Amino acid sequence: MTESKRSGKYQVLIIGGGFGGMYAAKKLRNKEVNVTLIDRRNFHLFQPLLYQVATGGLSPGDIASPLRVIFNKNKNITIVKDEVVDFEPSSNSVITKRERIHYDALVLAAGSEHHYFGNNHWAEFAPGLKSIEDAIEIRRRIFEAFELAEMETDPKRQQELMTFLVIGGGPTGVELAGSIGELAHRTLIRDFRTIHTSRAKILLVEGGQGIMPSYPEKLSFRAVQSLNRLGVDVLTSCRVVDIDEHGVVIEEDNRTYNLSAHTVLWAAGVKSSELGKKLAKKTGAETDRSGRIMVGNDLTLPGHNNIYVIGDLAHVKATDGRPLLGVAPVAMQQGRYVAKSILRKLRNKKTRPFHYHNHGNLAVIGRNFALADFTWFRLSGFAAWLVWIFVHIAYLIEFDNKLLVLVQWAGDYFTRKKGARLITNEGRK
Amino acid sequence: MTESKRSGKYQVLIIGGGFGGMYAAKKLRNKEVNVTLIDRRNFHLFQPLLYQVATGGLSPGDIASPLRVIFNKNKNITIVKDEVVDFEPSSNSVITKRERIHYDALVLAAGSEHHYFGNNHWAEFAPGLKSIEDAIEIRRRIFEAFELAEMETDPKRQQELMTFLVIGGGPTGVELAGSIGELAHRTLIRDFRTIHTSRAKILLVEGGQGIMPSYPEKLSFRAVQSLNRLGVDVLTSCRVVDIDEHGVVIEEDNRTYNLSAHTVLWAAGVKSSELGKKLAKKTGAETDRSGRIMVGNDLTLPGHNNIYVIGDLAHVKATDGRPLLGVAPVAMQQGRYVAKSILRKLRNKKTRPFHYHNHGNLAVIGRNFALADFTWFRLSGFAAWLVWIFVHIAYLIEFDNKLLVLVQWAGDYFTRKKGARLITNEGRK
Repeated sequence: MTESKRSGKYQVLIIGGGFGGMYAAKKLRNKEVNVTLIDRRNFHLFQPLLYQVATGGLSPGDIASPLRVIFNKNKNITIVKDEVVDFEPSSNSVITKRERIHYDALVLAAGSEHHYFGNNHWAEFAPGLKSIEDAIEIRRRIFEAFELAEMETDPKRQQELMTFLVIGGGPTGVELAGSIGELAHRTLIRDFRTIHTSRAKILLVEGGQGIMPSYPEKLSFRAVQSLNRLGVDVLTSCRVVDIDEHGVVIEEDNRTYNLSAHTVLWAAGVKSSELGKKLAKKTGAETDRSGRIMVGNDLTLPGHNNIYVIGDLAHVKATDGRPLLGVAPVAMQQGRYVAKSILRKLRNKKTRPFHYHNHGNLAVIGRNFALADFTWFRLSGFAAWLVWIFVHIAYLIEFDNKLLVLVQWAGDYFTRKKGARLITNEGRK
Repeated sequence: MTESKRSGKYQVLIIGGGFGGMYAAKKLRNKEVNVTLIDRRNFHLFQPLLYQVATGGLSPGDIASPLRVIFNKNKNITIVKDEVVDFEPSSNSVITKRERIHYDALVLAAGSEHHYFGNNHWAEFAPGLKSIEDAIEIRRRIFEAFELAEMETDPKRQQELMTFLVIGGGPTGVELAGSIGELAHRTLIRDFRTIHTSRAKILLVEGGQGIMPSYPEKLSFRAVQSLNRLGVDVLTSCRVVDIDEHGVVIEEDNRTYNLSAHTVLWAAGVKSSELGKKLAKKTGAETDRSGRIMVGNDLTLPGHNNIYVIGDLAHVKATDGRPLLGVAPVAMQQGRYVAKSILRKLRNKKTRPFHYHNHGNLAVIGRNFALADFTWFRLSGFAAWLVWIFVHIAYLIEFDNKLLVLVQWAGDYFTRKKGARLITNEGRK
């Protein structure tokens, strides 16, 4: 291990190159601090479009940008591809797999991972969607299922192969189920000779009373309607109690029953990165039930005014008293806030508490339907979809000039072609 | 196993969805035959641009198209994703992993695979470039090497990490080495803080007397010059006698010495698919040294006028007496030829022998330099590169309307940005 300590400048260490960490680093570009941005991966991932990779609409390269490319013009920012293993707040340093890194200010933005609620063996049967590799694995499973159904001669087995079950009625589950519906009922309709892909059964299973619980009830209802139009059946108040290679076991009104499905996908829960737990332990910070760290209104840890926690890892209360959602806009605003905060402190200015500006939530269902919940008005349908596509493309352009993704989508929209429907990494299951 | 035999129509079975098989099927679209196209993968791969995926210039989705999409409007063409395991010429049928398929005419276009000349254990240290997975693995190794070098403190080890050795001076080896040179000396130049990527050492090792042996000597010389400009050292008459995790052992003028390199890539040899051997055994056909099947001038097997072998698997003599190269244009022309031949026989017309129209060979070195060998004139440099890019884009557009790849490249050309530089599938080595 080597002690990394560069020049005399104030050292900001950011852990995680997601929306929180990346926007913090962006705000510190060419400022009077040295920034080290550390991530296990060499790229920033545009997570909100990951479900598009999982369903063959986009390629991984369309939604990921190397961190080094994003910051290559900013000499005060150093990218380190390494993994953080522990914290040493007493000496203001972080231990990685390869070295010990000193900081003057630390920003933890390590995000979240799947949470199977103590049933980690379910992961094999119902993969979740967090990484590029997850998306490629899900893509493989979906398209392989149609291929196997095409060759199957037993009708019962064929129907099972054409049954897709998505667990979790939040935005990811809804977007995944909607995209599979779109595939089966529209995109793939002419591709097979034996099966009719429109006979595919797509089930969205939610434990709570309704899907999209963070949206107003009316939009939640519109979401169900539009999912139905894409051939997706929505089952609410259905708790998944077991998963194996044949499908899932559901509990509803104290009765249990089996749902057979060849492809089961997990979108039911995330928990905070393990790093949060480690930092909490070392600093005595409190965590909530899902492992998020309780931070002050300046996003620092109590008693550690140079340690910030942001994004999915931070428990911050919204004006209504509920914790802020683990979504990109929250992380981005927090990233920008801590960067400004660090600079203000350095300049001996007073910092203001963090306040989240909710510009609204967006979720897309299939090809041209979306839900938009702006606090002052709500929208659903094609108009919301147009808003959705422009907001997303604007961000993609901002971080890597990916105007082309828009052009490509426009093309796909009219031709119904999808170039990323590849089955790769077979036999690695 | 089920016996697949559809309707009363003449059944053409094509094995392999590469350039040979795909073009045969294209020519049989909407004709008076039923076509079954069988492939292990669900996509056609534009192999000539695979090195671009391996070096982070393109995404897999840019150069692959699902076979079902290509043929979804052609009701007489059925795509089967399955693996052929054996042949039964006596009953005109083929055995796959899942069924037995009857044919009236068989077209074998199964291509080639890496050939380590009896040293299969080298594959682990020096991966070859044939599949999307190969390309992603090579991409991972190249970019991971730079990441490791950035963190390395021992200068000797750092130089080893920044040494890339490509074995084989044919088009693939030259294109790979040129692209790595481009990366190190141009594209990545501003991305790192500790290392200078331009100090990377890139070695192209060739056993023969010169690189690009199928090109005229003058172009081969220009290739060396342009590789040198990209920082690639070309070593000829150097035979690789061993490969391990530290690098390779070279034999030159009966002396052996070691070359240390963290990243070693294999582009030195291909052999015919194993299916060729099986078919030869069952039909008594002869094979050449690299396993290609000796076919008649109508591309059928002697004594089996309904079995065609095309592409990399076929040994067909050119006008100069040497066998035709295993390149896309040869396979495409052969695919079209056998389709026409099958239709002529069905219509009781005489067939003509196959004749290859050599429109020339093209190879690209780095960003804007190519070699073009048209039989009537030769070109190298930027003009050849323009020819190269238009020829390739024309084909990409033909098979999947991928005009966007051109737009993207044009964009990349000016911005030197590369969105596909992702390190994925780590820890699966």
